[in-house]
Amino acid sequence: MLINASLQRRLALLGSGHALPQQRLSSAELDLRLGLATGTVERIGGVRSRAFANADETAASLAARAAQAALEAAGLNAAQLDCVVAASGTMDQGMPCNAALIHRELGLGASGIPAFDINASCLGFIAALDQLSWPLAAGRYQRVLLVCADIASCGLDWQQLESAAIFGDGAAAVVLGADGSGQGVRILASKLRTYSEGARFCQIPAGGSRHHPSRVAEGFLPLTHFAMQGKAVYRLASTHLPGFLEELLSDAQLHREQIDWVVPHQASRLAMDHLSRRLGFAADRVIDIFAEHGNQVAASLPTALDIARRDGRIQPGQRLLLLGTGAGLSLGGMLLELQG
Amino acid sequence: MLINASLQRRLALLGSGHALPQQRLSSAELDLRLGLATGTVERIGGVRSRAFANADETAASLAARAAQAALEAAGLNAAQLDCVVAASGTMDQGMPCNAALIHRELGLGASGIPAFDINASCLGFIAALDQLSWPLAAGRYQRVLLVCADIASCGLDWQQLESAAIFGDGAAAVVLGADGSGQGVRILASKLRTYSEGARFCQIPAGGSRHHPSRVAEGFLPLTHFAMQGKAVYRLASTHLPGFLEELLSDAQLHREQIDWVVPHQASRLAMDHLSRRLGFAADRVIDIFAEHGNQVAASLPTALDIARRDGRIQPGQRLLLLGTGAGLSLGGMLLELQG
Repeated sequence: MLINASLQRRLALLGSGHALPQQRLSSAELDLRLGLATGTVERIGGVRSRAFANADETAASLAARAAQAALEAAGLNAAQLDCVVAASGTMDQGMPCNAALIHRELGLGASGIPAFDINASCLGFIAALDQLSWPLAAGRYQRVLLVCADIASCGLDWQQLESAAIFGDGAAAVVLGADGSGQGVRILASKLRTYSEGARFCQIPAGGSRHHPSRVAEGFLPLTHFAMQGKAVYRLASTHLPGFLEELLSDAQLHREQIDWVVPHQASRLAMDHLSRRLGFAADRVIDIFAEHGNQVAASLPTALDIARRDGRIQPGQRLLLLGTGAGLSLGGMLLELQG
Repeated sequence: MLINASLQRRLALLGSGHALPQQRLSSAELDLRLGLATGTVERIGGVRSRAFANADETAASLAARAAQAALEAAGLNAAQLDCVVAASGTMDQGMPCNAALIHRELGLGASGIPAFDINASCLGFIAALDQLSWPLAAGRYQRVLLVCADIASCGLDWQQLESAAIFGDGAAAVVLGADGSGQGVRILASKLRTYSEGARFCQIPAGGSRHHPSRVAEGFLPLTHFAMQGKAVYRLASTHLPGFLEELLSDAQLHREQIDWVVPHQASRLAMDHLSRRLGFAADRVIDIFAEHGNQVAASLPTALDIARRDGRIQPGQRLLLLGTGAGLSLGGMLLELQG
């Protein structure tokens, strides 16, 4: 495939931030609560400790804290934004969209600044960054807040330890600018693929109209739990990932060795290990926050990105691969070059 | 404000379609069921009859029927799409995104065609059309399915007749192409404004993490109902709409008289009447399907658009104003010129 240079585009990453609920819960503590032998939860899920929201914390309030950190890093205040986009994998309420609730938390209630959501489940950040890059490149927007916030803890079924053990709550945000603002990013290639034959492998059945309590005679509560067929997800994802990655690299005419950092969605221990064992990226080139955060749904990838920008691993001049799989079942990837 | 011609862009509207649940329910029938005097439900809500989904119909299955109609009108089959975007105002399930579930209904399960959602509550169609116009203009996509499907009936509280009486279920879709495909559309101006001080005026509190059944001690069921403070919505919307409309017209350097058709979100009888009484558009220039459809959330506007395209009111060479308000509280508008 010939490289299509016209599809490359620039934007500016003006700042990033993330936020975690105040309360952390270790896997050792979970062992105690669940009456399991010490080490069980960590062995099954690969997570040592994760943050879980308390009843006072909402996805919107977490999102606002992450957004404030990103705005501070960008040297901007919320009123200077010209668009607020939420790309969470779960809703805060059934209506309105998450972005409107975050907009209010940010004190923008009377501002008129537009707010809407982009949702691609766990891959929301990649899908939204791709979508927003076009109007940014065209000059429609100058400063866009992109924020992902998910509270998974409320929907976990502790009888299904394989999935319950891996999740954590959190939020992360970036402030995106039109190119020319200094902190330029070139998008070299971007790709999203959906294989909905796996739509049921990873789902929350309730929460919408399909299994609304008014339509479900009995057994509503279990439908509000996150349900995952881990092996089926892994099988479908690992069938498609190698070819997907080759296409993405080929679109950008890059080799693996030219990638400085892989910033993956922190899906599971197995998924993280797959990157080095099967996809050919050395573990020390992968931003891996899974053990201390778990899978934070759409907030996972931008949280890893923010952490690695703040601790200095990610530097100007480097090339990043954002990569992940998510409910759908979808695969998403993006190759970025940070301007030197 | 000077017109910014660089923000005008073209795309092609290759086809449109809509779908309704098989079962219709008249307001007279509702009067009987609710033990009200004949004429009460229609007098309060302004809707004579609406379609309500039965338990076998899902938002995704309705969406697929609308999509098939749009694809047929475009002379395409689903496998020829290169992106599937759902812009519903409500979720079908808590996860995955609506687009993945629709993708599966369309038989695209093994296709890899990317699928994601754009959600701006009732204004999803306008927000998504705007968002998608940029990658279409840039050549990223050639044929995008944009589909809105909402089942509001499951979440209505018949004790709150003012809001329950106005809703109907439905789905509508368009197939969008890159310009040059023949059925060109020029976007002359587009605008979204969010005033989240009104985020609670129009909401479904449950359905997500904020009021998840695991976090709500009692009284969960009422939180799954659509709740509207009609007067507050009307007050906030009517404060901002006149200025919003003037800005939109000014961005496109157009006067009201140069608009052939207003295709509004069918929010309520009051909102529809506001267009002619206060915003200066003659009622015979407004596509009004409210009495026989009710407010179909995000599906409302594209359903009205499809009906008026199919019955021949909308013709090549005309200028359209898409306009509405939605939960958020948001205002959305777009001025389109159909190529002659």
